[in-house]
Amino acid sequence: PPSDGKIRATLFPGDGIGPEIAESVKQVFTAADVPIEWEEHFVGTEVDPRTQSFLTWESLESVRRNGIGLKGPMATPIGKGHRSLNLTLRKELNLFANVRPCYSIPGYKTRYDDVNLVTIRENTEGEYSGLEHQVVRGVVESLKVITRQASLRVAEYAFHYAKTHGRERVSAIHKANIMRKTDGLFLKCCREVAEKFPEITYEEVIIDNCCMMLVKNPALFDVLVMPNLYGDIISDLCAGLIGGLGITPSINIGEGGLALAEAVHGSAPDIAGKNLANPTALLLSGVTMLQHLNLTDKADRIHNAVLKTIAEGKHRTADLGGKATTRDFTSAVCNNL
Amino acid sequence: PPSDGKIRATLFPGDGIGPEIAESVKQVFTAADVPIEWEEHFVGTEVDPRTQSFLTWESLESVRRNGIGLKGPMATPIGKGHRSLNLTLRKELNLFANVRPCYSIPGYKTRYDDVNLVTIRENTEGEYSGLEHQVVRGVVESLKVITRQASLRVAEYAFHYAKTHGRERVSAIHKANIMRKTDGLFLKCCREVAEKFPEITYEEVIIDNCCMMLVKNPALFDVLVMPNLYGDIISDLCAGLIGGLGITPSINIGEGGLALAEAVHGSAPDIAGKNLANPTALLLSGVTMLQHLNLTDKADRIHNAVLKTIAEGKHRTADLGGKATTRDFTSAVCNNL
Ligand SMILES: CC(C)[C@H](C(=O)O)[C@@H](O)C(=O)O
Ligand SMILES: CC(C)[C@H](C(=O)O)[C@@H](O)C(=O)O
Repeated sequence: PPSDGKIRATLFPGDGIGPEIAESVKQVFTAADVPIEWEEHFVGTEVDPRTQSFLTWESLESVRRNGIGLKGPMATPIGKGHRSLNLTLRKELNLFANVRPCYSIPGYKTRYDDVNLVTIRENTEGEYSGLEHQVVRGVVESLKVITRQASLRVAEYAFHYAKTHGRERVSAIHKANIMRKTDGLFLKCCREVAEKFPEITYEEVIIDNCCMMLVKNPALFDVLVMPNLYGDIISDLCAGLIGGLGITPSINIGEGGLALAEAVHGSAPDIAGKNLANPTALLLSGVTMLQHLNLTDKADRIHNAVLKTIAEGKHRTADLGGKATTRDFTSAVCNNL
Repeated sequence: PPSDGKIRATLFPGDGIGPEIAESVKQVFTAADVPIEWEEHFVGTEVDPRTQSFLTWESLESVRRNGIGLKGPMATPIGKGHRSLNLTLRKELNLFANVRPCYSIPGYKTRYDDVNLVTIRENTEGEYSGLEHQVVRGVVESLKVITRQASLRVAEYAFHYAKTHGRERVSAIHKANIMRKTDGLFLKCCREVAEKFPEITYEEVIIDNCCMMLVKNPALFDVLVMPNLYGDIISDLCAGLIGGLGITPSINIGEGGLALAEAVHGSAPDIAGKNLANPTALLLSGVTMLQHLNLTDKADRIHNAVLKTIAEGKHRTADLGGKATTRDFTSAVCNNL
């Protein structure tokens, strides 16, 4: 670790608009005196055989060593012989939970102003097992794998998160009326963990009904925990309620406190390098990273400054209907700190 | 068939509020001079060993013989030794597509007034295969099965539906970036069918992105076709956009023109027998049945009368914030024919 008491964190600026919005985060963090020293790593131009992706082994080692990182958007490169960067990260770093706080942002008008929930997605197994085969011509099968170990792990994380974040309820999302064994095991694990957290209300909601309730009345939900594919679906649905991936933070949790925060939006190559991108998702992901490090005061300060800047309206970027550049917005956030 | 030229159709009033809302449909159909003669069948009180459910073999035979039917809500009975009634119907009658027209209803205010789409769900395989097993203690697997035959069949139906209902676009919903083989086969079949319908625009949308787009801007969608579980999830999401299952019609399609329309809401035992239920979903399901029978004039007449009654607002049932009884609402619809 750096000798001056700073925390060293890995930074993947990513592709496209990544470098610009990463620059914004660096500026805001400096202005807020956040005791972090960034170790920057870039997406490679050739496949690293050890990771089978454009992410180098060294960059993954950096996250492992530092235990904490922040990631901008990475375009999924087209072509063969490599894995998706997102899946490589989850797998190599064993990032077992994807956490997305999702709340209505005053000033960012959508059809909903009453969203305040957190989705917690199992990130390593389920429908993402990669196990598929053709049985006979015209008949193919995919395997969904649910394990007690991974289900307990994500359930523990969800209840612990609820407890430490002042949340009152955990909803396990499932389709155990149809997938009795797999989703049944997932629920069984959630129930076991729920018993250890009597102060947290526990409920089970079938995924189809959950989606209907979310679009009708998202205020019914607090923390949602679920298997991989349901988490993929519901986290994007919830992001849609508040305006999309451009303002939604996320953090991936691994073993032993390791965490990688990430902006889950795309790399927007059409506006890359033009000083037009909205850095909000990466800034708020940076906030979740600070919360994870228990730098709560710094997290709150940056969080409030970002929200104040959007609410004021003078320095909105084009995606929010404004005319501000990335740098204008960033300066405004710094001024609002 | 009846000697007076009428069409004989099976009617399952169902449980709970089922008989009341079925009565409403019978009255409205009579008032509209619909040439249908109902053959009523009730849910049994004992499990029929031939169907393993409370649905008797005779009642299924009635749908097979008539080729057309309408079904009210049936409570899923609790206990062992029988199958869910919905799954029994799909399986025994080989109802391969579930079709749900979903449109904003003027006067039924939700956060959306711009929904006008149709979800078409593969109804026989996918994640509903029922194939699951424990590999070792703490490790369970479910099989998702996708076949060329069932995928082509539902894709054909979707494009045919689009063409005959003046729809312009079919979106295939999938997660083939992860389930390359199963969802990949589904997409391959959709593409094959799309080539036979050059007048219909064809696109593919990943399910997580689809859910985000649906909640942000449902007007982007027209006809959606998808494997079983995605259809289960997305059809309920869409119902949520327009107010819920109480106003959403649905029809299940089998081979050789067989069809069973159904209200997909619950049996609402708390208000059963109290003349309080809203018959809209069953009435509009009846409309989809008439459309299926090409009784287009009758279908339009009833459809318009139901929508007019809701829009007028004088005779709304309690779920719509009004004070009308089931019978008040029904009379108003008859007057609006
Ligand atoms: C890009 C894709 C593989 C990924 C997923 O399905 O998990 C994405 O949708 C996500 O949510 O991170
Ligand atoms: C009741 C349940 C088995 C059913 C399903 O999952 O298909 C229901 O959700 C539906 O959509 O008809």
